[in-house]
Amino acid sequence: MKENTFHDLFVDQLRDLYDAEQQITQALPGVIGAVSSDELRRALEHHLELTHGHVERLEQIFSDLGEPATGKSCKGMEGLLQEGEEAVKNHPSGFLRDALIIAGAQRIEHYEISGYGTAKAWGEELDLEDVVDLLDDTLDEEAEADEKLSAIATGGLLSEGINETAAAK
Amino acid sequence: MKENTFHDLFVDQLRDLYDAEQQITQALPGVIGAVSSDELRRALEHHLELTHGHVERLEQIFSDLGEPATGKSCKGMEGLLQEGEEAVKNHPSGFLRDALIIAGAQRIEHYEISGYGTAKAWGEELDLEDVVDLLDDTLDEEAEADEKLSAIATGGLLSEGINETAAAK
Repeated sequence: MKENTFHDLFVDQLRDLYDAEQQITQALPGVIGAVSSDELRRALEHHLELTHGHVERLEQIFSDLGEPATGKSCKGMEGLLQEGEEAVKNHPSGFLRDALIIAGAQRIEHYEISGYGTAKAWGEELDLEDVVDLLDDTLDEEAEADEKLSAIATGGLLSEGINETAAAK
Repeated sequence: MKENTFHDLFVDQLRDLYDAEQQITQALPGVIGAVSSDELRRALEHHLELTHGHVERLEQIFSDLGEPATGKSCKGMEGLLQEGEEAVKNHPSGFLRDALIIAGAQRIEHYEISGYGTAKAWGEELDLEDVVDLLDDTLDEEAEADEKLSAIATGGLLSEGINETAAAK
């Protein structure tokens, strides 16, 4: 049993997110290679770029706090990525697999929305305004990514969504 | 490689959620026993009751679709629960552990919000209106549970939130 402070736990949450983001940067190129839809591929390529920025923001925060970034492995993200990799492996390429990739990617986005939401609330409680601003920027981008994936799945006025195409199979 | 239809994948998503909900019903009593805050304990006890209802709704859906409920283990939820159990095990009881329990529970809620969101969108695409209504009822309850946990963490006009109490440690 460790006797930690709330600040220690806050840093632990940041380490969990840091490991999660790094796992995503490692897994996402393989996922992108398994996608059929050009629109989905572009969205995931854009998200990979953003994810590198999220890693850098967390490194900035660790530097500001004078804390090392390492020391935590994110079991939650491991399970989510394992689930997503199985979906890719077990289904041939095409719109059905794309629909599954979106389903897995949105579970990952929601992990991050929840994780950054917690970190932001704790940072506010600890009066770490600059840190909270950086976390909030990433939180906004994760929420936007989730909405974008929903839009690609369900389509719009001018385009057929991936779900509609998949359902026609 | 399986050659599935979108309907097959939809049933797979439901099986993933069914396994996830069952994992939660098994893990939640232990979490409730580790909580210090009466308000948080009551909220989790209420959510355990709701979770039994979510399991029953999914069983109703499987029955309506003429599909067996079994055959899928939810790796994503396994990772999330493992993460939560480590947090409980590694910290003594009190408001800090409660704050961590809320953080873990909100990650779990977000997994379900994303999973039910996907299942609802796919059910709509498949024109399964009665099934979609049942999924939507659960989705609403998961989103409410997430908001309730945020409120317990951050407090309100009349009460100190768990985060504020934890930050004072």
